[in-house]
Amino acid sequence: MDKRIQRCFLLFYIFPVVMLAQNRLRDHGVEIGVLHPGTLNAITDVPGVKVGHYTLNKGADIRTGVTAIIPHSGNLFQDKVPAAIYVGNGFGKLAGYTQVKELGNLETPIILTNTLSVPTAMNALISYTLNQPENENVRSVNAVVGETNDGYLNDIRGRHITEEDVLKAIKNAETGPVKEGSVGAGTGTICFGFKGGIGTSSRVLPKKSGGYTVGVLVQTNFGGVLQIAGVEVGKKLGHYSDSFKYSPDGSCMMVVITNAPLDSRNLERLAKRAMLGLSRTGGIASNGSGDYVIAVSTAEECRIPYESEKTIQNVPSLRNEAMTPLFLATIEATEEAILNSLFAGETMIGRDGHKIEALPKTRVLDMLRSSGAIKQ
Amino acid sequence: MDKRIQRCFLLFYIFPVVMLAQNRLRDHGVEIGVLHPGTLNAITDVPGVKVGHYTLNKGADIRTGVTAIIPHSGNLFQDKVPAAIYVGNGFGKLAGYTQVKELGNLETPIILTNTLSVPTAMNALISYTLNQPENENVRSVNAVVGETNDGYLNDIRGRHITEEDVLKAIKNAETGPVKEGSVGAGTGTICFGFKGGIGTSSRVLPKKSGGYTVGVLVQTNFGGVLQIAGVEVGKKLGHYSDSFKYSPDGSCMMVVITNAPLDSRNLERLAKRAMLGLSRTGGIASNGSGDYVIAVSTAEECRIPYESEKTIQNVPSLRNEAMTPLFLATIEATEEAILNSLFAGETMIGRDGHKIEALPKTRVLDMLRSSGAIKQ
Amino acid sequence: MDKRIQRCFLLFYIFPVVMLAQNRLRDHGVEIGVLHPGTLNAITDVPGVKVGHYTLNKGADIRTGVTAIIPHSGNLFQDKVPAAIYVGNGFGKLAGYTQVKELGNLETPIILTNTLSVPTAMNALISYTLNQPENENVRSVNAVVGETNDGYLNDIRGRHITEEDVLKAIKNAETGPVKEGSVGAGTGTICFGFKGGIGTSSRVLPKKSGGYTVGVLVQTNFGGVLQIAGVEVGKKLGHYSDSFKYSPDGSCMMVVITNAPLDSRNLERLAKRAMLGLSRTGGIASNGSGDYVIAVSTAEECRIPYESEKTIQNVPSLRNEAMTPLFLATIEATEEAILNSLFAGETMIGRDGHKIEALPKTRVLDMLRSSGAIKQ
Amino acid sequence: MDKRIQRCFLLFYIFPVVMLAQNRLRDHGVEIGVLHPGTLNAITDVPGVKVGHYTLNKGADIRTGVTAIIPHSGNLFQDKVPAAIYVGNGFGKLAGYTQVKELGNLETPIILTNTLSVPTAMNALISYTLNQPENENVRSVNAVVGETNDGYLNDIRGRHITEEDVLKAIKNAETGPVKEGSVGAGTGTICFGFKGGIGTSSRVLPKKSGGYTVGVLVQTNFGGVLQIAGVEVGKKLGHYSDSFKYSPDGSCMMVVITNAPLDSRNLERLAKRAMLGLSRTGGIASNGSGDYVIAVSTAEECRIPYESEKTIQNVPSLRNEAMTPLFLATIEATEEAILNSLFAGETMIGRDGHKIEALPKTRVLDMLRSSGAIKQ
Repeated sequence: MDKRIQRCFLLFYIFPVVMLAQNRLRDHGVEIGVLHPGTLNAITDVPGVKVGHYTLNKGADIRTGVTAIIPHSGNLFQDKVPAAIYVGNGFGKLAGYTQVKELGNLETPIILTNTLSVPTAMNALISYTLNQPENENVRSVNAVVGETNDGYLNDIRGRHITEEDVLKAIKNAETGPVKEGSVGAGTGTICFGFKGGIGTSSRVLPKKSGGYTVGVLVQTNFGGVLQIAGVEVGKKLGHYSDSFKYSPDGSCMMVVITNAPLDSRNLERLAKRAMLGLSRTGGIASNGSGDYVIAVSTAEECRIPYESEKTIQNVPSLRNEAMTPLFLATIEATEEAILNSLFAGETMIGRDGHKIEALPKTRVLDMLRSSGAIKQ
Repeated sequence: MDKRIQRCFLLFYIFPVVMLAQNRLRDHGVEIGVLHPGTLNAITDVPGVKVGHYTLNKGADIRTGVTAIIPHSGNLFQDKVPAAIYVGNGFGKLAGYTQVKELGNLETPIILTNTLSVPTAMNALISYTLNQPENENVRSVNAVVGETNDGYLNDIRGRHITEEDVLKAIKNAETGPVKEGSVGAGTGTICFGFKGGIGTSSRVLPKKSGGYTVGVLVQTNFGGVLQIAGVEVGKKLGHYSDSFKYSPDGSCMMVVITNAPLDSRNLERLAKRAMLGLSRTGGIASNGSGDYVIAVSTAEECRIPYESEKTIQNVPSLRNEAMTPLFLATIEATEEAILNSLFAGETMIGRDGHKIEALPKTRVLDMLRSSGAIKQ
Repeated sequence: MDKRIQRCFLLFYIFPVVMLAQNRLRDHGVEIGVLHPGTLNAITDVPGVKVGHYTLNKGADIRTGVTAIIPHSGNLFQDKVPAAIYVGNGFGKLAGYTQVKELGNLETPIILTNTLSVPTAMNALISYTLNQPENENVRSVNAVVGETNDGYLNDIRGRHITEEDVLKAIKNAETGPVKEGSVGAGTGTICFGFKGGIGTSSRVLPKKSGGYTVGVLVQTNFGGVLQIAGVEVGKKLGHYSDSFKYSPDGSCMMVVITNAPLDSRNLERLAKRAMLGLSRTGGIASNGSGDYVIAVSTAEECRIPYESEKTIQNVPSLRNEAMTPLFLATIEATEEAILNSLFAGETMIGRDGHKIEALPKTRVLDMLRSSGAIKQ
Repeated sequence: MDKRIQRCFLLFYIFPVVMLAQNRLRDHGVEIGVLHPGTLNAITDVPGVKVGHYTLNKGADIRTGVTAIIPHSGNLFQDKVPAAIYVGNGFGKLAGYTQVKELGNLETPIILTNTLSVPTAMNALISYTLNQPENENVRSVNAVVGETNDGYLNDIRGRHITEEDVLKAIKNAETGPVKEGSVGAGTGTICFGFKGGIGTSSRVLPKKSGGYTVGVLVQTNFGGVLQIAGVEVGKKLGHYSDSFKYSPDGSCMMVVITNAPLDSRNLERLAKRAMLGLSRTGGIASNGSGDYVIAVSTAEECRIPYESEKTIQNVPSLRNEAMTPLFLATIEATEEAILNSLFAGETMIGRDGHKIEALPKTRVLDMLRSSGAIKQ
């Protein structure tokens, strides 16, 4: 093996695995659900999917960033993917909803960032799209941008994210393991009163159920009464109250991608199930929470060309009856992705000295062990 | 105390409490969530709400029935209540959805029954409404009827429910404790592969959160991977598989009633949260499941008179910001109501000798004990 | 030509044309829109579509009926059609909405009748479905029934429609010309204060736009300020007022069928356009109006088998870009179908001596002539 | 009268009336509908409503702008207004939809601009809101921005609108007459193949119907087969074809404001009726059209304070039964506003020498006269 390949190998395979080994729930022996994750237990288990982060952790007050999720490596505008967005609770500023609903497709990468940087991210997506080869005559772009509010740790009013930052997140996007925790759009987010951030997970269906992969990536910034593998961690830690020690408000962005051939109607149904996964972590979709799920199919035969001489397209489409295992996969992967974001979070001090502690993992693992959620 | 009053007392207070004591989850020391239930831990904790059952358990093949939920004792058509219906998964035949959505109110009792008896129940509600005093000129009635499919245990194709049966359920309606398990519309239903049925629960908010009561009643007939207080009972019992030992299809009807003054928009948001409660029991809203939530406010000042000389009504309405505790209450009460339906279920043999076992409570309670969900 | 063929010819072509010649708007030289109708200018121009009426015009007080629309001649439950329902204004009792929305298909004939007979029609559709060969094991049927309120002319509280009447309408269904006006479900309905009823129309797209046919059938029972071919007939007749001489309430059921290969998402978009057609007749979708549009595609390759060994179906699907001509066709055919219902209506006396005049056609045609809407 | 007042008088009353006298449909003797417009026949007839334009007509290729609609003169974020948005056809990039839907209110001015400048306008609205006194701690803003695509006449890819331009439109906002045609967000838009732009109209209900005012403002950029007062102008001019001489795609933004006390549910119903008005001009909501309606109530007692010590608000709310006259008013005002935009449009040459003719008013008025739409 020559040095460069070796370095690559270390960088892409050994190093991340080692790094992630310390962070992820499953590495501690906790299994969420009954289905099996893919190789990386990440949204990138879905072939072709790329994720990129840009983290802006600067000075005393800036704790924010951008995460880009790219369904396929081609020109997304020319080769759109079937898509749906489900609104769990709409106290949020996600951009692009109504066109996805009407036309059933997605034509840009998905960007996640902070609430007040949504317009900047949209502008970056428009630039990105207008400037791609073949798009010289494009005059309309439906930018899809999700957000949560990191304003407790981050000087959100300063709107520090620039268009360049967003383009960097897109450029950084790659297949392979996904960094979790306080990176990218998760840099300054808070989950159940602890440090949240980016989390991801996946499930692979058994062959007889189609063998499809479902990957989920989340940006966690919400509250409720934390449960891990069903264990009432929040209640045991007293880290809640009937009026909550911390505000349960916030938001959760969930991106669900599958290679199953689904039309937008069934993608919307799939998206809906991510909220059931959120619930199992103790999430309650509080009044002030912006909980959105963006669901996409990467199945190649389902792509929708921007222009086509044919007015009829022959599309393979999974029957309604075959959706149930995909629903289960989405619920489990969402639950685990949220918990992964908590396990990857590290204590952070930000704006005005605000401090958010990481999940007290040692105590939590003790609880999981004594309740049997960790097999000994 | 004279004899008759004494008998009443026994019948309505002592007897049910004793009877229910053996069945309900909370009686075994399991506490769901962080909020407290009302006195009865039932939907009837909301003042004025009545529930009535009519059970049709006849011969070898008939295992069905009707459950009526009545928000207030007046003439519901003349004095409508704010209402909303949320469709968790729409593989179902619930009647009355679009008018409730458009007008934001409910004008009949809520009837639950089996799938193929929905039209009969509608006819009964129409008769009930047309025949009430003051309704002599009524020519339009929006009957709200929910259903689940009890066709495995019940000869559903026989359509054995009559209009009279439905009217009996309404007549039977009373305040006080609610019979759970295989009664009324829950007579022939199946939940997580075990005997399901009717379940109920409630939560009372702390004074500072408004002191409101939220009551939930469910008709459980759905599947997934059962969790009780977070303990993975279904997984431990092996009572599931990636393609499920039993069909996860079915349905769940959820009725949420509160005395908080809510308009239909916030009632729809409340209704949505019941699905989060369902999720915490392991429900997945499978493709073939008809999961609906009907939410109603009984607040007197929010009633909508059928006819009025005033075109403007002054309505007290809870601010969005005050909804979060009600959301949490709905989630918890729905979770517990579903579990109560399982704890009240008893093994049943029905159509063509089909047999559905009750939840193996002894084993389940052992599991809960060893995982710490029951305080010892 | 032999006698039998001759008779057929007379029956199917000459006779109806003569009969209809007196009734229909287009026969008077009025052309609605820019697209051309099909041969019959009826919903039955869509190949395979059948319409059947059962009229119950009895004694002094009964003026009601049933109309059945059957998308194809096979077993609809075994061979479902893509479908969508759009709610223009939901003050109505249409049955079957949520399942059509969730699953995107229709599994029964469409029945139209009066408001209080919806449950009876549902029961008839359930019987019809359960009793068809091959459906021996069916235990769940989503009956789709629309309605308008004919309670001014008809003793609607008497609920005179029986299940048998509904089954007769289904049995009466046939291809070919469609009887309009006060027949079937239109027997007792009122439109813009005049006698309404059943109306139908169609459009055939030019070859280059796909050559598809769009057929519309309506049951008209609504109000507003009547316009015919844009001429303000209602205003000129003074047959309205700012508070209306007649109640603008009522309802309009619209059924849109096409042989274009559309999925449920695009069928919902198509359905939405029927409301634009209604508007052009002066309809305003008043508060008390139940305005619903049921849209169906009869394209054979789009049928959805009840059971299938394949979990993936290859479905031809029209691209979004090709929808516009179908939208225009739907708007025009809906407008003309509504106007046809008025031109076919005849003065009727019903319940309690209530009398509704037919549209004063002579005066109206004069108006159309003098405004140039009729070419001279 | 002193000089300054006199000048004001000329500026605000005489001058605009003279100027508008040449442009507006009603000045030519055409009356749309049966209800009466307000004094200005503009959205500003609703007390307190302000409209401001910023027009960017520069060099050979830039033909675009911004229009701001401000429901009341206070701090909109601190004193939100009940609101709803209805999506007629969602091929569009309107920002802010999901939060308005969830919370039922609007917290920023409404901005209209071109498709690719939506993010810039959002950024401006965020700046505007963050910088208002009392908003020092605001960290979340739901910017509502509508758009249509002026890319045929305007170098839209150049994204020439700046945040400052948007703020200028807000600053320019005033009560009184509204400039129509090729101004503000209407600078480069096209309607039915002719020059479109901004249009406005209003209706005042009779006292017995509540006496409320409904005002509508539109940004017209869509197609179909033009009808004016029901007269088939597009057909007569041959300015269409079955595949259209011009693309029917485009969009229409409609803003409906009323002083009637409406909650968000009834505002959504009101918004829906604007599409019926659009239909009466010949609009068809083509596939590529982004047709959105934003509806707002300015009733003072319905305002929603950002923060409040009271969790319950007493809100006057119009009963469903009283909505019908408001529906009619919305339909009529939308129809007339669209036609006003056409009557105010002037021939324009823009990007790459593209030329769009004004509506040929002389010929059109002849048609209207000969068909009796103009009383002689």
